[in-house]
Amino acid sequence: MSESTQIAWNRKDLTGIEPLSRGEIELILDTAPQFVAVSKRQSGIKKVPLLQGRLVVNWFHEPSTRTRTSFELAAKRLSADTLSITASTSSSVKGETLHDTLANIEAMHSDVIVIRHNCAGAPHILAARHASHIVNAGDGRHEHPTQALLDAFTIREHVRKHTSNPEATLDGVKVAIIGDVEHSRVARSDIWCLNKLGARVCLCGPATLLPMDVERMGVEVTHDLREAIHDADVIYALRIQLERQAKALFPSIREYIRLFRIDSDSLQSAPAHALIMHPGPINRDLELATEVADGPRSVILEQVSNGVAIRMAVMHLLVNSGNKSGS
Amino acid sequence: MSESTQIAWNRKDLTGIEPLSRGEIELILDTAPQFVAVSKRQSGIKKVPLLQGRLVVNWFHEPSTRTRTSFELAAKRLSADTLSITASTSSSVKGETLHDTLANIEAMHSDVIVIRHNCAGAPHILAARHASHIVNAGDGRHEHPTQALLDAFTIREHVRKHTSNPEATLDGVKVAIIGDVEHSRVARSDIWCLNKLGARVCLCGPATLLPMDVERMGVEVTHDLREAIHDADVIYALRIQLERQAKALFPSIREYIRLFRIDSDSLQSAPAHALIMHPGPINRDLELATEVADGPRSVILEQVSNGVAIRMAVMHLLVNSGNKSGS
Amino acid sequence: MSESTQIAWNRKDLTGIEPLSRGEIELILDTAPQFVAVSKRQSGIKKVPLLQGRLVVNWFHEPSTRTRTSFELAAKRLSADTLSITASTSSSVKGETLHDTLANIEAMHSDVIVIRHNCAGAPHILAARHASHIVNAGDGRHEHPTQALLDAFTIREHVRKHTSNPEATLDGVKVAIIGDVEHSRVARSDIWCLNKLGARVCLCGPATLLPMDVERMGVEVTHDLREAIHDADVIYALRIQLERQAKALFPSIREYIRLFRIDSDSLQSAPAHALIMHPGPINRDLELATEVADGPRSVILEQVSNGVAIRMAVMHLLVNSGNKSGS
Repeated sequence: MSESTQIAWNRKDLTGIEPLSRGEIELILDTAPQFVAVSKRQSGIKKVPLLQGRLVVNWFHEPSTRTRTSFELAAKRLSADTLSITASTSSSVKGETLHDTLANIEAMHSDVIVIRHNCAGAPHILAARHASHIVNAGDGRHEHPTQALLDAFTIREHVRKHTSNPEATLDGVKVAIIGDVEHSRVARSDIWCLNKLGARVCLCGPATLLPMDVERMGVEVTHDLREAIHDADVIYALRIQLERQAKALFPSIREYIRLFRIDSDSLQSAPAHALIMHPGPINRDLELATEVADGPRSVILEQVSNGVAIRMAVMHLLVNSGNKSGS
Repeated sequence: MSESTQIAWNRKDLTGIEPLSRGEIELILDTAPQFVAVSKRQSGIKKVPLLQGRLVVNWFHEPSTRTRTSFELAAKRLSADTLSITASTSSSVKGETLHDTLANIEAMHSDVIVIRHNCAGAPHILAARHASHIVNAGDGRHEHPTQALLDAFTIREHVRKHTSNPEATLDGVKVAIIGDVEHSRVARSDIWCLNKLGARVCLCGPATLLPMDVERMGVEVTHDLREAIHDADVIYALRIQLERQAKALFPSIREYIRLFRIDSDSLQSAPAHALIMHPGPINRDLELATEVADGPRSVILEQVSNGVAIRMAVMHLLVNSGNKSGS
Repeated sequence: MSESTQIAWNRKDLTGIEPLSRGEIELILDTAPQFVAVSKRQSGIKKVPLLQGRLVVNWFHEPSTRTRTSFELAAKRLSADTLSITASTSSSVKGETLHDTLANIEAMHSDVIVIRHNCAGAPHILAARHASHIVNAGDGRHEHPTQALLDAFTIREHVRKHTSNPEATLDGVKVAIIGDVEHSRVARSDIWCLNKLGARVCLCGPATLLPMDVERMGVEVTHDLREAIHDADVIYALRIQLERQAKALFPSIREYIRLFRIDSDSLQSAPAHALIMHPGPINRDLELATEVADGPRSVILEQVSNGVAIRMAVMHLLVNSGNKSGS
């Protein structure tokens, strides 16, 4: 029986992975499978009334399709009402503070605020001062906790299938994260999440794209792709943010491809069972060759599917088991 | 028993406060409390089916978070379907007239059209020619009637609590409106609304921000803040629209703050029971000091909460009691 | 009994009119009347549960009010959940391919994807590779199939009323399409649709606005407005896209008006029963004089009303009778 059955959820917010215990993370992962079934409309169930009459506000200060859409669908499948506020339509253009905007949203009796913001820490500051349940949907380069949870869930499902052990954990699983770790909130949340779950994390990329003191996070570091993936159970390619190339963080795209791209050539160094993952959107043939992105080892679209279920699990736990302060 | 119980609602539209009788205004205010309860989810009721299957279209030609959101929530809590059309997505970029765009929306069987437009009078012109129920959500510098109704409702709730008289009216209540009256549709609607309800209105601000012939509206005018607030039951600070400062309508922001800002210093001249109100969004420490905006006398967030209930009351009255022409 | 009762719907997608048989088109038209009643809320029915729990995604790469709104309402009246993705909010700004964006949407278990794209053929390419039901809401200058279906439905309703024959078809009905055929996806879909239904189509406009080899489509062509309309049952004015005037495709707007505008003067050449149609938005007094657009022969707003019902019929047939590949 999983450790999480002894754990009760009592947090008001999901601001990041770093503050969570292993038990809390596993509780979220254990709550998700019921929502995978709803999300896929298996057995005819299309919605559950767990957030009936509740209000979920998507408040995105950066453009996003997949994350915003995933949260909106998760809320709708929980029967919540949804409201979308984008930076361009919001009062921030009139100079209102984040606190005042949120206080106004809350005065209309919102339950969950899903926030993406370009400033690291914005969700934490809001969570500390407001009664709504805050979910961090990405804050600057800091954290993207629901991405890490859906990644861990996807890996765990495959480990359980592969080992035919329905209670297998991530203990001892090796995940190689390849590419631009420095600018990636996904990598940061993934490292915390995988470490807490007992996985081994190895980072690999050009020196300019790896944080200076990253070993402190308890990870292995290498600049040799084959070394990183030769014993990896999961190969997680990060997105290269081409817009940063102006800063010349690596010599050239051709150089990056030669050394770090996951393609059928470099994959020959990896175990046959290794999964291919990516947080999307993909730069095809840059960080991932098309034959790999669309190949049999790729679970990239499963990540997207599981994302809806994980976000349903998170919002259900926050609203129905979470600690309420104020409200 | 309130006068409004004798009044039946029979208007198709809410284009402004100016055309309404005291009885009509009080009917709206008397209809709101049941929706305050729904909006707060008191006694487990989260929605009412009063607009089930109806279509409410939010048609905003100016950016807005709080007003658009408030109307959208009000519609959803009445179980209506909602649709949002913004100027940038609309056919106005293709040169279509307002009448033609509205005729097209109506041809899809809309029930309520909530319109914000930068031209004063736009909602009135549309209301006269179309069968849908039109609600003015702000037209140029002219009117913002639901703001005035939620303001009056908020004041009345506090007067009733303060006097322990559940049927107290606004007769004789003094409201001091401070700041940029000239450019404010909120002030214009508030003045009409408060006057009709028997309140005394005193305007205070730099001469350049007060309309020339404002005394005609039946208000007192002063340029001395302490004189305005010394006997005020309500101090209503208007937003300074900083973008207009290019026109140099007052000598400097520092000068404005010294003479007209509501802060703990200037509040010493006001009665202890005086409420602090503001239509939002606030320029903190310009028109209102932070200690006042967040202080015990501030009912600014109650205004926002009551806004949803008032908008539910308005749309319910229009659709379920209103006069239908055409359709 | 209509031919369509022998036809079963078995297409996964509606990419255009060209591939449809007459029987398939008539099946859609015969499915619409029940939804006209729902759309008008006749007999108290406001929604039908035919797409309950299904997800309809509106994915518009060009701005649109009427088409997007019409699809969104159609989906809501079928009780579907809806999600809207616009080009500006989407990952296309991050360089993601159409296929990858759609694969991501599908991974969240979408049922119907309504797509408008400035590239001709985009819906077809997506339909061939993805399991979702794809509905073309306009692709470049190529097709706009639901517009053609609502046009045919509107004409057929009037023919049936006019002839007092509830099973009348479009056989032998003459439709004159006036104006900018060259740049119009509406004209292209209308020509295919009307031809398949047995109607005679006559195109009329300046030579520069008529496609070179248009006779191949089985239509008559004339540059004389009076010749085109003297025996027309329907006069269909296309929108002049003023932004193309930079290319000087016709000598001047004054010249166009003199030769091709439908006004009370030119209408004297047409039969008394001829209907006036337009796909909207109208340039008033350019392609249509105001007295004609708003006159008794105009069925322009009926087209808009019928559009919601036709789109309900299309989505119902695709989801509930359509061929599923994959998913």
